[in-house]
Amino acid sequence: MKQTLLYAPTLKEAPKDAEVKSHKLMARAGLIKQTASGIYSYLPLGWRVIRNIETIVREELDKRGSSELLMPALQPRDLWDESGRWAAYGPELMRLKDRKERDFCLGPTHEEVITALVRDYADSYKKLPLALYQIQTKFRDEMRPRFGLMRGREFIMKDLYTFSVNHDDLEAWYQVMKEAYTAIFKRCGLETKIVSSDTGQIGGDEADEFMVMSEVGEDTIAYCDTCDAASNQEFSGLEIGDPCPECDGFIKHAKGIEVGNIFKLGTKYSESMQAYFTDRDGKRKPLIMGCYGLGISRTLMAAVEQHSSESSILWPKSITPFDVHVIPIKYKGEAHVEKIDALVQRLESNKAVLLDDRDERVGVKFKDADLIGIPHRVVIGRDFEDGKVEYTNRLTGEKSLIDLDTLAELLQ
Amino acid sequence: MKQTLLYAPTLKEAPKDAEVKSHKLMARAGLIKQTASGIYSYLPLGWRVIRNIETIVREELDKRGSSELLMPALQPRDLWDESGRWAAYGPELMRLKDRKERDFCLGPTHEEVITALVRDYADSYKKLPLALYQIQTKFRDEMRPRFGLMRGREFIMKDLYTFSVNHDDLEAWYQVMKEAYTAIFKRCGLETKIVSSDTGQIGGDEADEFMVMSEVGEDTIAYCDTCDAASNQEFSGLEIGDPCPECDGFIKHAKGIEVGNIFKLGTKYSESMQAYFTDRDGKRKPLIMGCYGLGISRTLMAAVEQHSSESSILWPKSITPFDVHVIPIKYKGEAHVEKIDALVQRLESNKAVLLDDRDERVGVKFKDADLIGIPHRVVIGRDFEDGKVEYTNRLTGEKSLIDLDTLAELLQ
Repeated sequence: MKQTLLYAPTLKEAPKDAEVKSHKLMARAGLIKQTASGIYSYLPLGWRVIRNIETIVREELDKRGSSELLMPALQPRDLWDESGRWAAYGPELMRLKDRKERDFCLGPTHEEVITALVRDYADSYKKLPLALYQIQTKFRDEMRPRFGLMRGREFIMKDLYTFSVNHDDLEAWYQVMKEAYTAIFKRCGLETKIVSSDTGQIGGDEADEFMVMSEVGEDTIAYCDTCDAASNQEFSGLEIGDPCPECDGFIKHAKGIEVGNIFKLGTKYSESMQAYFTDRDGKRKPLIMGCYGLGISRTLMAAVEQHSSESSILWPKSITPFDVHVIPIKYKGEAHVEKIDALVQRLESNKAVLLDDRDERVGVKFKDADLIGIPHRVVIGRDFEDGKVEYTNRLTGEKSLIDLDTLAELLQ
Repeated sequence: MKQTLLYAPTLKEAPKDAEVKSHKLMARAGLIKQTASGIYSYLPLGWRVIRNIETIVREELDKRGSSELLMPALQPRDLWDESGRWAAYGPELMRLKDRKERDFCLGPTHEEVITALVRDYADSYKKLPLALYQIQTKFRDEMRPRFGLMRGREFIMKDLYTFSVNHDDLEAWYQVMKEAYTAIFKRCGLETKIVSSDTGQIGGDEADEFMVMSEVGEDTIAYCDTCDAASNQEFSGLEIGDPCPECDGFIKHAKGIEVGNIFKLGTKYSESMQAYFTDRDGKRKPLIMGCYGLGISRTLMAAVEQHSSESSILWPKSITPFDVHVIPIKYKGEAHVEKIDALVQRLESNKAVLLDDRDERVGVKFKDADLIGIPHRVVIGRDFEDGKVEYTNRLTGEKSLIDLDTLAELLQ
């Protein structure tokens, strides 16, 4: 892909309202652009990362027996009256009327819609369990949108819902989803800690959060420095610096960005919305539900937070927008351009390649490339006449002058 | 994929409001389910087709130099005041206020947002042309939602916008997009005709529509029965049955479903919204824009309309939700189930396979399979003990009792 066609407007200065590193970098690298407070466009580079994250999420969920669907953003009030949340939800719920003065809201979450979908169908234990998910734009009218994609008013979520015949089956799905989430964040290059959380506006019996450690998270968590124990409350009876009774570690604390939140809903929605099935014993019982949220746009933001310095991003291989950044010192002269294009085409056989074909000074090109953060860099300079290019693996720091065959091999 | 995990609620009867064949079939086959008037959920089978259509759209647009991004659904009023459309647009525009009483609308189209995005960046001829697109949920508060996905209030669109330095470049992009659309619909298995149309609420200088011939379209078009000429107005001076002066054909008419609509916008938005660039001659000029819509959810609906009988769908290979439907007469007994699972796993190495593992009578299984419309069918009956299955290619009508190796070969 040629950079002139890409639309990646890099900026020298971050927007004034950008307080945290990831927000500054995402705006400066041309990954996102604000349209209104807390409302962003994902520009091509940012969107490519989002799509990579989505692919990882789909792969990990599909192979664990989930099915993808898409529910509407517009939700009619009657469903929210059934669950009782039309009255209970605060001003974060964006409400509107249609041309016939009927009430709707813009979904911040989809418990009502999915329960209404499933209740007509899953009337027998034979049709259960079900694990259904969607990747979708959600809406929440935050009082104070901030930190770029961290607390936005329009954001991309994966939300999954399980429907079980009993609590044991819910427990089994809950563990499967914990594994799936752990695998997803690991594949995205993110270190996460799991902490139990309160159930808030979603409701239910029990909940856990997946936290990415960061300097800018909105939550403080306490964790043991050697084992996996973590909590968003104090460890009972323990204070920072105390040894941990179950292991050799000590309690520390850190900030966390919440990237996932999973809930054992139990029968909160199935009872209020009359979602019953006939069990093996012939009795009518409410569906036992779980719900599992994962912030796709927040994961993008958390990845930038973890994989960057103040002036440049460095993408994990799994989610990088492009694999290889080819930067010719000059991209002029028919024969020279043809040779460069041929090299790019060769590399594109198995890698996503971005070619900086812009008519810009080389200093500008390098600065933008640092900012954008593609892990493999190929600089085409004077030695190109002798069939050599300068290759840098930004992840390892390895840098060498190599011929084109060696380059092609290296990138396989 | 096991059918019990899929959530494909087939229905014996279509919903009462379903007037047209595709709407009836899509509801009965469990592709979509209505949540409110004109507002649907895409269930897993329908969603898989949507994703296949999206992949085709992306491939055809990306290879022609376009870049994908995602803009917000929530659009602030100030942008629509700049273009003048806040006042001009009727009650189809869904409007709402945020918690601070600021006006927003839910985007039916994104000329304002994209123009605002590009105007800060494309300030020089060096950064042009640009072709940017998104695949996104759109909103239009139709007075009378009808025909299922044909006239809905929330629907999925691909919208692409081009930015050119002059009208020749716009003309070149316009032709490129005509080619892309023709390729996309052909790959989706749809026959389309191109007719020139008026520019309506989008505005601009010239527009064309892509029409899928159907019995239920909302538009009537006149076309020549042997050449490509088509129009949504009468051919000047010609009537139905007349010979066509340029060729040997005769004028006929038919109903059409509009699946694409492309516009030469010219400077309508760039002038009103101050999107200017500095040209090679040093002069400031307004960007010359084009916009290109393609109805993703409508394409799904049109595909069902063209590829179905009254009681069953038959998917084109390119967009089918699964390639192979494996239907065991019974799916019980450990050894038998293991053998079936092994066959499915073998076929899944290169095909998407749906296994009907439901505890249902075989008549129900066949009826649902007809309805759902997967092109390759494998029935596992008595001869499975001898290593043979019944294979049907529903596209060709070919049907045979074959051994498993031959089956695997056939499906390669």
